[in-house]
This record gives sequence, C-alpha cells and structure tokens, in this order.
Amino acid sequence: AATSTTASPKLLFRQLFEKDSSTYTYLLADVSHPDKPALLIDPVDKTVERDLSLIRDLGLKLVYAMNTHVHADHVTGTGLIKTKMPEVKSVVSKASGARADILIEPGDKISIASLFLEVRATPGHTSGCVTYVTGDGPSQPQPRMAFTGDALLIRGCGRTDFQSGSPQQLYKSVHSQIFTLPKPTLLYPAHDYKGFTVTTVGEEIQYNPRLTKDEETFKHIMENLNLSYPKMMDIAVPANMVCGLQDLPSKASS
Amino acid sequence: AATSTTASPKLLFRQLFEKDSSTYTYLLADVSHPDKPALLIDPVDKTVERDLSLIRDLGLKLVYAMNTHVHADHVTGTGLIKTKMPEVKSVVSKASGARADILIEPGDKISIASLFLEVRATPGHTSGCVTYVTGDGPSQPQPRMAFTGDALLIRGCGRTDFQSGSPQQLYKSVHSQIFTLPKPTLLYPAHDYKGFTVTTVGEEIQYNPRLTKDEETFKHIMENLNLSYPKMMDIAVPANMVCGLQDLPSKASS
Ligand SMILES: [Fe+2]
Ligand SMILES: [Fe+2]
Repeated sequence: AATSTTASPKLLFRQLFEKDSSTYTYLLADVSHPDKPALLIDPVDKTVERDLSLIRDLGLKLVYAMNTHVHADHVTGTGLIKTKMPEVKSVVSKASGARADILIEPGDKISIASLFLEVRATPGHTSGCVTYVTGDGPSQPQPRMAFTGDALLIRGCGRTDFQSGSPQQLYKSVHSQIFTLPKPTLLYPAHDYKGFTVTTVGEEIQYNPRLTKDEETFKHIMENLNLSYPKMMDIAVPANMVCGLQDLPSKASS
Repeated sequence: AATSTTASPKLLFRQLFEKDSSTYTYLLADVSHPDKPALLIDPVDKTVERDLSLIRDLGLKLVYAMNTHVHADHVTGTGLIKTKMPEVKSVVSKASGARADILIEPGDKISIASLFLEVRATPGHTSGCVTYVTGDGPSQPQPRMAFTGDALLIRGCGRTDFQSGSPQQLYKSVHSQIFTLPKPTLLYPAHDYKGFTVTTVGEEIQYNPRLTKDEETFKHIMENLNLSYPKMMDIAVPANMVCGLQDLPSKASS
C-alpha cells in the first residue's frame, strides 16, 4: 500500500494555496546544505509576499522560480520575485515559447544542492506543459514526487480547448510520462477545486474519471466540457509569456 | 534543520480543505495492517461525501471521526458520517461537554492498529479544546505530528472571546502543551486563511506574532481583535455539541 508522505531527511517541502485561482505553489529546499537552496514551483503574483516571508523565516536561499506552463488563470509570481530578488532564475520550458532565464527541455535536471528535479514533457493542456519529478536514486525523496501542473489534476485534468491544447496529446502525455512512474509516486497538481492536496500514480490509474477511459472516450469527454472562457486569460497569458515581467520598466528606462 | 515531511512507512496521511470555512480535515490510516484502519480529524458536513469517497478509493476502514473542539464556524461531519456508517465512533473531549461515543481526557490514547494519537488538553479558544499528537516512540511517525485545532494556527491562534475562551488559558496551553514538543514536530491546524498547510514547533516558537509575546501583551492583543460575531455560531455550536446529530430522527421514530 502506498503511503502519502515522503521520507527524505534533507528535503524541506511546503505546499501553499492561493484561494482565488485555487492554485498550489510548492516550495522545496535542500536543508542538508549550509545555504539551504530552495525553489518555488508555480508561484502566484498575489501570494509572493507570503511565499518570500516564509522563505526568510525558514532561512532558505531561493534559487529558482519555476513554472509548469504558461498559466491562463493567474499571473505567475516569477516576475515579481525577480524584481525583489534579481539573483533568482526564472525557469520555464523551451516548448512554451515563453521568455525566462532558463529554458528547460525534457530530460533536463534542475538541482538545489543534492536534490534534483527531472523535466518530463507533458503537453496537451498547453503545448509547453512539463511535469517536474524529484530525482531517481537512493539519496532522493522516496516515494518520488511529481509536480504535474495542469496535465494531471486529482481525479481530473486540465482543459484542452485553448493554448494549443490537444486531448490526444494530453492522453499520451499522462499515460507515457506520469502513469509510468512507480505507483506510490506522490502527484502534486497546480490546482485543486475540491480541497484535495495530493494523490498518487496508483490512485489516478485506478480512479481518474477521465484518464482511465480509452483515448476515444477521453477525447469525447474533453470536447464536450462546455467550459466558459477563463476570466483571467487575456491578462494572464501575455503576462506569463514573459514570466510576469510585462509591466516592469525596461532596463533602458529604469 | 527541520524538514516538513514525516517518515513512516505505515502512515497514510491526507490533508483536506473546506473552502467556505477554510477548515482542514485530516485523514490518517495505518496501511501496514490488513484492515487499514483510519480516522478523520475535524470532518466538515459539506465535504463528508468527498472524504468518504476518498476513504473508499484508498480501501480504508474508517474507525473514528474525531473533533478537536466544538466548532463555531462549521458543522462537524461526524454526525453525517455516523448516519452513513453507524459503526464509526465519534470522539470529542469530555471537557467540551459535548456528546459523542467516546469522551477523551488528557493522556488518553486513540489507536488505529499500531499507530496512535495522544490527547493533550489545550483549552483557551474553548474550554474543551484538545490537541492530538502522534505517538511518542520509534515505531511512530518521525517527526511527530500535532493536530492543534484552533489552539495554535500557523502564525496565529484561535480567538478567545466566546465559548468560555480565555487568553491566559490559551497562552498557558500553547506554551506548556505544544511548544514543549520537539522543534521539528509538524503542526497541523484546524484552519488556515492564507494558504499555508503546515508549520513546525520551531517555527511558531520563533515567528508566531502573538504567542512569542509575553502573557500580558498576548492578553492585550487577544482582547483588542474586534472580531465580528461568527456567521455560523448559532447553528454550528448547538449542532456540534451533539456531534452534528441534532437534526437526525430519534431512534424511536426512525
Ligand atoms: Fe493552466
Ligand atoms: Fe473553533
């Protein structure tokens, strides 16, 4: 039976929630290293102050502010973080077409001291979606943890009707890149709307109401969701294409 | 440095959130036992279906539905759970004056297979508040986890202006019963309003804006919060005094 906690004496892990967009932000740090280097996954602009205050309290050194994809429902906190801490590196996938300090590709590793995340391409919600998976190895967290963005949600998945979304691609991504992880792997999504905080590969393989179906049925489900146009889309997407930096004065004028 | 994950191969742990009242419900199970016995701490009536569905998916056997105190902001899910699963035992403190199948007192232990919780009296928010702490011992989760109800919140604490609340009593409870736990102990509150999910004893000893103050200052802070009367109080408190069972048909008539 899978447990739902990770055993790693060096990992400090915090899940953080932004209520308006029901977004989860994740903080990971290697507290076995004297610098306690840290990274944030999917920070939200509204909660940057909270996140940085927690990072200060915990004595961590923020190194990376990462996004799983170009969000349509909230503005990433990445840009705001960089205005306050220019040394922090923004990270997003090359496939997203967005700007960032570091453009990652499938197979890349992002390290904080002795901990690392692996990049897996999981397009379908957007064409640039990635899943970050904690490292494979005895010195890495066990069970592994995967940050799935909007590719896989708890008993759900991200919509596929805009931002170059594709149900076929999403189906393939989840089945080939996420469901192939060991069953106890902890899955942490970018959103939850029902108050769940975590799931596992084993649970979603068995109970995901969409992704347990065959590909044709999945496609049919996704094409008939009749979702409304996201409120924040016209603000959030352009902002997130430049990691939330669009409103900042240019270097020349500042 | 404290990590914020617990290492226990037998503990299955889930944190669940109810948005309207910003309440956390906790699910714990011993998955090393064939029955996978489980308990819920502070279930909410609105999210009982979600919680029981998760318990079914995970193949757990719910044994206890427990409350940390008589809540004023939501109706406990305990009563509703018992109507669906009469074999589940409701648990609340004797000091609360509420009705339940099991009335616990400080020092009592609640066991699910080889895991157990210890009861600590932490009055002050209400006179019957308790904190449930995972067992002390090598076979129990490390670091320990404490479910503090409204006694201690993340960077905050419960109000003390009704339900026999007392700032002096709350100050003493937190300092003698919670801050005396090992610093890496993970603290899980009944509520959070800012999107935090967990803290540690070490963090709150250092950064709690109220409880790091001396007792007189704490009392002054608590007596000047100017909080409004809780919306749900007149519905929730009577309901919770009978563990959410007040609207059920009596045994004679059903
Ligand atoms: Fe998205
Ligand atoms: Fe309360």
